[in-house]
Amino acid sequence: MNNTDLKSLYSRRAQALQQAMWSQGVDMFLAATSVNMLYLSGFQEPPLERLMFLAVPRESEPFWFVPDLSMQSASENPAGWAIGYHWHDSAGPMGTLQAFAQAQNLPAGVFAIDDEMHASALLMLQEALPAALFRPGGELIASVRAVKDDLEHGLMLEAARLTDDALVSGFELCAPGHTEWAVALAIQRALHEMGSKLAFGIPMVGAGENSAKPHYNTGHRAFQEGDVVVIDFGGMYEGYCSDITRAVCIGQASEEARKVYRIVYKSHEAARKAAKPGVLGSDIDRAARAVIEAAGYGDYFVHRTGHGIGLAVHEPPYIAQTYSKPIEEGHCFTVEPGIYLPGKFGVRIENVYFMAAEGAVSLNAEPPSEIREIG
Amino acid sequence: MNNTDLKSLYSRRAQALQQAMWSQGVDMFLAATSVNMLYLSGFQEPPLERLMFLAVPRESEPFWFVPDLSMQSASENPAGWAIGYHWHDSAGPMGTLQAFAQAQNLPAGVFAIDDEMHASALLMLQEALPAALFRPGGELIASVRAVKDDLEHGLMLEAARLTDDALVSGFELCAPGHTEWAVALAIQRALHEMGSKLAFGIPMVGAGENSAKPHYNTGHRAFQEGDVVVIDFGGMYEGYCSDITRAVCIGQASEEARKVYRIVYKSHEAARKAAKPGVLGSDIDRAARAVIEAAGYGDYFVHRTGHGIGLAVHEPPYIAQTYSKPIEEGHCFTVEPGIYLPGKFGVRIENVYFMAAEGAVSLNAEPPSEIREIG
Repeated sequence: MNNTDLKSLYSRRAQALQQAMWSQGVDMFLAATSVNMLYLSGFQEPPLERLMFLAVPRESEPFWFVPDLSMQSASENPAGWAIGYHWHDSAGPMGTLQAFAQAQNLPAGVFAIDDEMHASALLMLQEALPAALFRPGGELIASVRAVKDDLEHGLMLEAARLTDDALVSGFELCAPGHTEWAVALAIQRALHEMGSKLAFGIPMVGAGENSAKPHYNTGHRAFQEGDVVVIDFGGMYEGYCSDITRAVCIGQASEEARKVYRIVYKSHEAARKAAKPGVLGSDIDRAARAVIEAAGYGDYFVHRTGHGIGLAVHEPPYIAQTYSKPIEEGHCFTVEPGIYLPGKFGVRIENVYFMAAEGAVSLNAEPPSEIREIG
Repeated sequence: MNNTDLKSLYSRRAQALQQAMWSQGVDMFLAATSVNMLYLSGFQEPPLERLMFLAVPRESEPFWFVPDLSMQSASENPAGWAIGYHWHDSAGPMGTLQAFAQAQNLPAGVFAIDDEMHASALLMLQEALPAALFRPGGELIASVRAVKDDLEHGLMLEAARLTDDALVSGFELCAPGHTEWAVALAIQRALHEMGSKLAFGIPMVGAGENSAKPHYNTGHRAFQEGDVVVIDFGGMYEGYCSDITRAVCIGQASEEARKVYRIVYKSHEAARKAAKPGVLGSDIDRAARAVIEAAGYGDYFVHRTGHGIGLAVHEPPYIAQTYSKPIEEGHCFTVEPGIYLPGKFGVRIENVYFMAAEGAVSLNAEPPSEIREIG
């Protein structure tokens, strides 16, 4: 994208947020987390102790409030939002914050703030704007961020491609004698060599009975013939996260492993087919769960079916029994049903989907319909 | 330590905090970050979206405010603090928070909160306690945490030992043909095998001109004969962080590399010797800087001399030109002077020190006085 296209894209994001602000009576949104600053401007700063935010007024262009140390880098933000206010360490932020408060002419305005803004920053804002009303703005920005635009769709696709490629490097070590940890490091290394990195934690690699633990911490078990191995990790591209899970078998799979894999695969496919724009998250979860319950394994599917994903690994919407809102065009989310047989093995199959007009489109490569025997 | 000893240790920590609260007119401290909950109770929960905190009243025992999901695990906290309030997802936290607010009988009390508490949590507290005064409590708890007790001293020692041991595994790959990235992974793996993990980021391993970049991101450069290699990382033990930096040479070192190493070593030793209880952080920084300036390399020492360390990798006190407070008995801090010659090489030598009555005692193995030639 050229600069003009980028600027118009960030303008559209700001406008979508401003529209949501109108409908909720919010005068100004203050983005203080690096993820939301990135979303609204293309510029990201690692979390700082110094007071910094992007202010989005309801009816005019966003602008920055920054410490002098960040002024140069913030001024190059791809959205082109101007530096409204800057402050120097020697004076501290309060004087500048008071100038900001006066200039906005919103003494009793309604300010929506990032839920994860530091409380110490909120206390400063409240001191500068003693009559203003501050509200948590997490749901507001989440509803806007959930709908991915063309640029984001492309970045999510690339994150998924890098993740798929790194998985192949992990598979190369799926053979008797290699360890869970070696596979995890091979995946981490492959991502690094492609200029990517892990979107969260160390890859989860669980073999044999470890594969039956949904939140296993990768250890040093050496693979044995017949082990089911569950691999779960995600790569990252330009801040956007991916997430994938595959279950494979070292050598020949048992009849039970084949059977359980087929049920999880059918459950995954049922959720994917149920996912159309406007369908509730709970209904997609139901579609996945029904397959596993009908096969008699309902007690062994112990988590929700999926979660929204984007700049955060977990974000709205959720594919869960308790999520009664619709999944909409442009949403990105995982489908990841699983069956966990304690002391024996587990299977989970996870892809990231993009909700297109015609239905859910996978960003990852398709999972095989039968358990892969490998090594 | 047995349970009784642990309980009395956490009591002493709470009392130290309460004493600081007295001197600053604070009625209640609310710990909401996992690090501060761990410090005050021995119990840690990964950061949750659900409202949870440990309340420390000025004159009575700390108690928990927790979601039902965390009640079981929190009730087993080693400090033995009681569950004061718990709330269920179906009702949300506000009703319970109002009951808490009423029972404290501090309608206009002064509450010090974790600086990094989520703003959304602070907004709920303010709704439940509309006349109370909320203040950032970061400096308050930092001043207490800076002084390490016997248990913490032991944990810091163990974190340093694990770090030293992992470094040896990294050195094994310091030979022509191996890469920066391979050394970083070997260190990560060694920590993992010892039941430890990285305290921050991927180990920084910079060879040749990369060693001249103080904040280099480890890449894939293969070591060549004569490369200076700077390795910087930290292990973790029971939540406590360590941090070490060593510079070595692949094969024979140049005269310049030997000379620069000796200057940095002398600078490190000067800071260590200057560090006695009561000496200002700025004076220790000065001692390190004077050696490098006298040798004519002052322009190439581009960062502060060190930082406090404990449950956070960076915390007060600081060994820096701008830190005019004394380093006190029980403080843990790094000493890490460096010289960076752009396009050529860099040297940094870092150990963690514990301030004993008689002076600074290294928690890490001693650095060699001459650059180590390796591989």
